[in-house]
Amino acid sequence: MTARGEIWIPTADELRSAADRIAGHIHETPLLTSQTVDTELGCRVSLKSEHLQKAGAFKARGAHNAVFSLSDDDASNGVLTHSSGNHGAALALAARSRGIPAHIVMPANAPQVKKAAVFGYGAEVTECQPTLEARETTVDSLQRSTRGYVVHAYDDRDVICGQSSVGLEIVDQLVHDPPDAVVVPVGGGGLLAGVATALSHLLPNCVVYGAEPTGADDAKRSFDRGLLIPQTAPDTIADGLLTSLGTLTFPLIQRSVEDILLVDDRQIVEAMQLLYTRTKQVVEPSGAVSVAAISAHRHLFEQAHVVAVLSGGNVDLAELPW
Amino acid sequence: MTARGEIWIPTADELRSAADRIAGHIHETPLLTSQTVDTELGCRVSLKSEHLQKAGAFKARGAHNAVFSLSDDDASNGVLTHSSGNHGAALALAARSRGIPAHIVMPANAPQVKKAAVFGYGAEVTECQPTLEARETTVDSLQRSTRGYVVHAYDDRDVICGQSSVGLEIVDQLVHDPPDAVVVPVGGGGLLAGVATALSHLLPNCVVYGAEPTGADDAKRSFDRGLLIPQTAPDTIADGLLTSLGTLTFPLIQRSVEDILLVDDRQIVEAMQLLYTRTKQVVEPSGAVSVAAISAHRHLFEQAHVVAVLSGGNVDLAELPW
Repeated sequence: MTARGEIWIPTADELRSAADRIAGHIHETPLLTSQTVDTELGCRVSLKSEHLQKAGAFKARGAHNAVFSLSDDDASNGVLTHSSGNHGAALALAARSRGIPAHIVMPANAPQVKKAAVFGYGAEVTECQPTLEARETTVDSLQRSTRGYVVHAYDDRDVICGQSSVGLEIVDQLVHDPPDAVVVPVGGGGLLAGVATALSHLLPNCVVYGAEPTGADDAKRSFDRGLLIPQTAPDTIADGLLTSLGTLTFPLIQRSVEDILLVDDRQIVEAMQLLYTRTKQVVEPSGAVSVAAISAHRHLFEQAHVVAVLSGGNVDLAELPW
Repeated sequence: MTARGEIWIPTADELRSAADRIAGHIHETPLLTSQTVDTELGCRVSLKSEHLQKAGAFKARGAHNAVFSLSDDDASNGVLTHSSGNHGAALALAARSRGIPAHIVMPANAPQVKKAAVFGYGAEVTECQPTLEARETTVDSLQRSTRGYVVHAYDDRDVICGQSSVGLEIVDQLVHDPPDAVVVPVGGGGLLAGVATALSHLLPNCVVYGAEPTGADDAKRSFDRGLLIPQTAPDTIADGLLTSLGTLTFPLIQRSVEDILLVDDRQIVEAMQLLYTRTKQVVEPSGAVSVAAISAHRHLFEQAHVVAVLSGGNVDLAELPW
């Protein structure tokens, strides 16, 4: 609980509890390295590989923490959310792990491959018009009929604590070689807020940057003005980063993030190509934004040891951007 | 040395010496696993990830063993070979590791990306007409002018011993969970001969299969007839597997391989897609032939623990086969 006007800051113990809660259900993802990538970027890069996470993205962490934090009573009617992408699949997987129902509201124009993933984890899919209003209305209506528990994609304490386990793993995996900086893609900010808070507790000298597309730069504008500015009309190939920061994630980002680094779509595609050709890793546009930011802002990282979080790898092979 | 009529079979000690010789120069590649892939293939698969090897393919192993087996005197004039693909880049890298020159003869129609890789490792590139005769004539002529040492891509004892380190690593990495079978792509047969020989020494109950495209099936035809039949007019997207078996590799394959499993190009593409979407790994067509063979011949592997060797990941992103 926090008093009125105070921001919520999860403690190191709360973050460790979340990590322990989900440990048996998610992968501890590897840190990959490549001499060619280091030469290309002018610094020493460790790639935190959440594209190798279950369901192909870090979202599995927050979803599992939210689902396994529920009391048996709250869990009994299942969980629901709206999602056009990775959060829906992650919540479906987490619900299956606990053996409870999941209802995922998806816009009718969501890619078939994403719908198939959600179906594949055994969730019910309800289609709606592709507007935020229609998505929220449909979730509300489903919530009333199912009496299930709604899990927001990022503006949820349990989700943020779950995502922070990426930061705890980085600290543990690099205990003998701590990084100077960590770069994290930012959409709604759950991953960035979680990782930055974890590092503020455990490795306070490590600088944390967000990485964001110029075509969806609400986090940069909000950060610079000190005021939550919603995203309108985003335009970027990084389709996981279209959302606005939330009321829980923004204060944590203000507290523990050094800056938000912008990259354009051309730089994102070049980063994807570097990762494909040099590390043989399939990373989605949103997941490659961290590497793009290191490349585009390399003066910040000269000779440093930098962790780039590759946040996901769910990309439609028929629509690769080259 | 072997007496006339005897086949050459490297001993376990010879293979271990080769592995020790190259250990500081190559990666011990990981064994990747995926529950979704296991479900899809109906067996438990460990993916031996040579696409993550230096220069993007297992060829770095044999090339390093050949280069570091040379006396200082033999090495002083450098090494040369002809190659349109991974062997040329691997030999260029190995020569750079030892600090000696490399001359790589490449057909004029080799992909620009492959030429760039060889250049990138500091080798001299000599272009020739795209025929085997022109390639061999050009190497002969270069050998006379440079007095360098010619390293054949696969029909060379040091190269075969180097490739066998893939097999030693599999045995070491799975010492507490030994595989029932190992499936290895076969072109010239250096990798298959090396791995099969290593396993015959160290894990004789493990069955080794070759995996080959129907459009370049000289290994299958040679194996079935007990007679070395050269490949003519190969036609497959697996461009690393177009070559014929050699006089050193064929007898080792006859001795220690259970069978050669054929797959068509459609099955190869499906295997690549499975690896891209489910494991987020970029594998070239030749490298995915092992997984295609497990899928196409799944009755051989039901419920077994199978290692699929992913032999390389050098694929032109502009020419993905979908």
